[in-house]
Amino acid sequence: MAAPVTTSASELQRFLDGPHAAVRDRVREWLAQDGNAPAYDLPIEEHRAQVLAWARDLAGRGETVAGYPSEYGGGDDLGGYISGFETLGFGDLSLLVKVGVQFGLFGGAVLHLGTERHHERHLRDIATLELPGCFAMTEDGHGSDVQHLRTTATYDTDAGEFVIDTPDDDAHKMWIGNAARDGRMAAVFAQLIVGGEERGVHALLVPLRNEAGTVLDGIRIEDCGPKLGLDGVDNGKLWFDGVRVPREALLDRYAKVSPNGTYFSEIESSTKRFFTMLGTLIQGRVSVCGAAINASKVALAIAVRHAEARRQFGPPDGVEVPLMTYRTHQRRLLPHLADAYALHFAQERLVATLAECFGEEGERGRELETMAAGLKAVGTWHATATIQACREACGGQGYLRANRFAALKADTDVFTTFEGDNTVLLQLVAKNLLTGFKHEYAELDTLGTAAFFAGQLWTTIAERSALRELVGRIGDDLIPGRDEEADLLERDAQLDALRWREEHVLASLARRLRGGLDDETDPFELLIACQDHLVLAARAYVDRLVLEAFADAVERAPEEHRALLSRVCDLHALHLLERERGWFQEHGRFSSTRSKALIKAVNAACAELAPHARLLVDAFGIPDQCLASAATIAGGA
Amino acid sequence: MAAPVTTSASELQRFLDGPHAAVRDRVREWLAQDGNAPAYDLPIEEHRAQVLAWARDLAGRGETVAGYPSEYGGGDDLGGYISGFETLGFGDLSLLVKVGVQFGLFGGAVLHLGTERHHERHLRDIATLELPGCFAMTEDGHGSDVQHLRTTATYDTDAGEFVIDTPDDDAHKMWIGNAARDGRMAAVFAQLIVGGEERGVHALLVPLRNEAGTVLDGIRIEDCGPKLGLDGVDNGKLWFDGVRVPREALLDRYAKVSPNGTYFSEIESSTKRFFTMLGTLIQGRVSVCGAAINASKVALAIAVRHAEARRQFGPPDGVEVPLMTYRTHQRRLLPHLADAYALHFAQERLVATLAECFGEEGERGRELETMAAGLKAVGTWHATATIQACREACGGQGYLRANRFAALKADTDVFTTFEGDNTVLLQLVAKNLLTGFKHEYAELDTLGTAAFFAGQLWTTIAERSALRELVGRIGDDLIPGRDEEADLLERDAQLDALRWREEHVLASLARRLRGGLDDETDPFELLIACQDHLVLAARAYVDRLVLEAFADAVERAPEEHRALLSRVCDLHALHLLERERGWFQEHGRFSSTRSKALIKAVNAACAELAPHARLLVDAFGIPDQCLASAATIAGGA
Repeated sequence: MAAPVTTSASELQRFLDGPHAAVRDRVREWLAQDGNAPAYDLPIEEHRAQVLAWARDLAGRGETVAGYPSEYGGGDDLGGYISGFETLGFGDLSLLVKVGVQFGLFGGAVLHLGTERHHERHLRDIATLELPGCFAMTEDGHGSDVQHLRTTATYDTDAGEFVIDTPDDDAHKMWIGNAARDGRMAAVFAQLIVGGEERGVHALLVPLRNEAGTVLDGIRIEDCGPKLGLDGVDNGKLWFDGVRVPREALLDRYAKVSPNGTYFSEIESSTKRFFTMLGTLIQGRVSVCGAAINASKVALAIAVRHAEARRQFGPPDGVEVPLMTYRTHQRRLLPHLADAYALHFAQERLVATLAECFGEEGERGRELETMAAGLKAVGTWHATATIQACREACGGQGYLRANRFAALKADTDVFTTFEGDNTVLLQLVAKNLLTGFKHEYAELDTLGTAAFFAGQLWTTIAERSALRELVGRIGDDLIPGRDEEADLLERDAQLDALRWREEHVLASLARRLRGGLDDETDPFELLIACQDHLVLAARAYVDRLVLEAFADAVERAPEEHRALLSRVCDLHALHLLERERGWFQEHGRFSSTRSKALIKAVNAACAELAPHARLLVDAFGIPDQCLASAATIAGGA
Repeated sequence: MAAPVTTSASELQRFLDGPHAAVRDRVREWLAQDGNAPAYDLPIEEHRAQVLAWARDLAGRGETVAGYPSEYGGGDDLGGYISGFETLGFGDLSLLVKVGVQFGLFGGAVLHLGTERHHERHLRDIATLELPGCFAMTEDGHGSDVQHLRTTATYDTDAGEFVIDTPDDDAHKMWIGNAARDGRMAAVFAQLIVGGEERGVHALLVPLRNEAGTVLDGIRIEDCGPKLGLDGVDNGKLWFDGVRVPREALLDRYAKVSPNGTYFSEIESSTKRFFTMLGTLIQGRVSVCGAAINASKVALAIAVRHAEARRQFGPPDGVEVPLMTYRTHQRRLLPHLADAYALHFAQERLVATLAECFGEEGERGRELETMAAGLKAVGTWHATATIQACREACGGQGYLRANRFAALKADTDVFTTFEGDNTVLLQLVAKNLLTGFKHEYAELDTLGTAAFFAGQLWTTIAERSALRELVGRIGDDLIPGRDEEADLLERDAQLDALRWREEHVLASLARRLRGGLDDETDPFELLIACQDHLVLAARAYVDRLVLEAFADAVERAPEEHRALLSRVCDLHALHLLERERGWFQEHGRFSSTRSKALIKAVNAACAELAPHARLLVDAFGIPDQCLASAATIAGGA
């Protein structure tokens, strides 16, 4: 590698921080202040109180409203808000989740599903945390399939009120953040019934507690009980028994009910209406993805410091060498480090897209939704795997709570299944890809229904000419060894390989679905039979997206960072191709020689990057207060 | 699959339980008793007191001494002891570790490193827990490389005593189980100095506390502090400052010191002596491996019950289907379930080998050491991956502590790095394989020193004619497509593939090392360059070993279980081959067609086994009290 480092960690950090460096720095400063370091051993009630106090402090500093409109005290800067939120991912993740619930989910529901009246009345209080609130969607019986949740909101024309009910125990609200302790109001998702007619899921603002904190009549709240992690978040269960709220409580941006009980929506299909409302979830997924990536950076920073400071074994002369010397240790850490860089740039692109297209319908909206779902799945799984690898790489030291891994593991664990279960999300991605982002509405539920295949989807696929052409071509592409001479150290060859895989997997999936539909196969069984293919197609899409984002970042990086970043990008790409080399050989894209060469190329990239690992993690700009506290790990400074 | 199930879970359990069914059943009964279910939310001090009380109760029932000689109250039944210990893996893992420290490590050191005097004096009290003790080997500065630990035991001829010292802070004992709260004595590993001469690491019995629990003069004990898991185990740090113990405190089976300070050992080489003493660690590894496998069974039993009880989405007619219906869900759980079966039978074989060959030197001893190291690594990583997959497959329910995953994840996490770091252990395996188990001594340390390559090792490799022949042959084997027609659904073809891979990887490793030594490469750098190859060779060995054990179990299974077990064995083998299909294609062993067929074969096996998943987990015989407590997960009964 030609002289890769002509730069310092802080300069590289400037490039990584991108357009929202200022807000990131403010959050870093806040995290570095006395008393704001992650809690790792507080009793649960103290932890919750601490988290609420931290959230209030952040709100008081205006760090939580950047995404709101300026007329309600915000900054009209969604990208800035998410960047600040992500940076909280370096610290106590209970705080991050609490902030996400209050300002992102609850505030987001009021902002995006409500109208001016709701904004005027509540947004300022939400932004200051004067009004702590909940996002009450998930039920015990329906987590992924929220279109079929069963809480009801029945309009009583005489009283001009909605009556909220939990029909049976399976339908109580579950996992509702902010509910067990602090929430005074909730955006409750319920099946709306007007004039005896079911209108599908809508959201209403329902007060839960009075200002003294007493739970209101008709409402029952229980703590969800001890959790695997996120002790500082007060998740609760909610039951409603004939709770009455005024007609104005309906968040009525997409559907209105007149005083005399006439229902009106500009969106005719109730399914489309529901998925339009669910669009608000996209911001949550983008936020969780960024948080997961940043949590993985903390683990990497700790493990890299440890690998440089800790010495064990050595050559016969008796001098012990740092763990980072060992190829096995490099292999454990550095591909994850390269992935963290890659995902960082992909996330930067996702946040920019979100800021630009949030709320849009049509293709751009669908593309945003697809990116968000795919990156959320891949980013959160990356975090789980990376944190585990880093814990193990720190040996016994990694097992001390003071060294952060306990909380990192436990708190991020749920990221893979909340805000959309990753496996379900990847199927959503595949469905959107098949339709070329042209499908009208798209959310989790359609994956579970075979209606998805019953004509409409296939028509869209068939109309997508590029894909149709590809479907026809598959088979001709299988020329063994065709890529023999391509140099996988070249970025274009790496990109080419991933683009080819994405198109190939998607086209063969489309062909399989079409073939299946020609038969008399039950569409639901066909869907199940293709599920692993759907997931593979989604992964191939995300893999390409991530590498493109990283490659683009290398191109636009200031001269002095380019060589180093390019080598990190190589490691990311090579390690991915190494992992997928079975597939590439199967499809005649890599010869066995080329495939074996990948292993050596990954080893070589690891060895070259090992001396720069510390600089690479320092460039994340994680405050020392957020890193391990035990000297052996924090050492090597 | 031809009518696979003509059997009940309890009959299948009888076969799984094997020769030690009685002790397994006694431990199951104990676990099912009121008050013995795993603790999931006790404050740390209560948890520790509970764990001690449980351990005393077990000791009082004689469940902890089966492995000791009958003259000291034991049953001369090491296999029975380990089987009972493994079964504790269904319950609170803090108890399991506490039991392992007291009866396995501490008792094992006295039994195997001491002589009759030590046995007479202590074994009965150890067996009843009258004398709680520690195994004080690891130091803060030396965890994997214990040959270089730095605590000293200097013989004072005038006083006829050893003086134990912690030379500096880096050398304090660390992670010592039973030290922070309960231990009254420790087997302390220290560099022995007699007549001014260093004799290497030896173990001595050092009292830590008096009967009232007061720490003795010269000894400092601190709690290690909050850990990621295993809260019920009192891990501590130990410092020694001029602590005097009588000459008889030396555990002197392998080396004696006379009153006048003459050192004598039948084992001349101090390194060989050290590794002979370390042989006692084998039992610990076998025990941890069994515990990890059983912990993974608990996770699988919970996740399979959940997958059958929980319904989400479904075909357009609106009937929601159980999660287990989905291919993605089957793919998440069933290969892990098949692996748990495979590892169960491999562990059964390992325990039988341990009971037969423990303490033997020579080839059989080396082979046992190799099996134990390899299976410990693969079994504990299996547990980590399986528990994680099961947690995710249970969604939010899996995130409730009451549903066991929090403790399963946290408590088993350290298994991958204690009793030998997995990555280091796999390198030990590879080294033993290279020498065909003929190397004189073999332990972790030699992996870190290049002395390992400096002649002796290579001589042994060269003498191993089969391997030499193979080394010569490599290259000729690369006939693409040679296996095209082999049916990978046949057991012999599966075994063939794994045996071929093991031999091929090992031979190419040997060739690479020999090639490296011909050059003027630094041997330590050569070792580092080959580390990933060493790890691959070890994995290939373990993979073959595990499949052989499973295949053998299928053969000897009673007629009525054979078809079902055979299909589970298929899934294990096919999934492994699917994972490794990149390698098999690279080496011309699988054509691309054969390779792709593996994916379909895994899907088919999953679909066939899904209806039997509940029976397969029920056959583990896990008491209900050890499964999840929340109704949604425990449901489906």
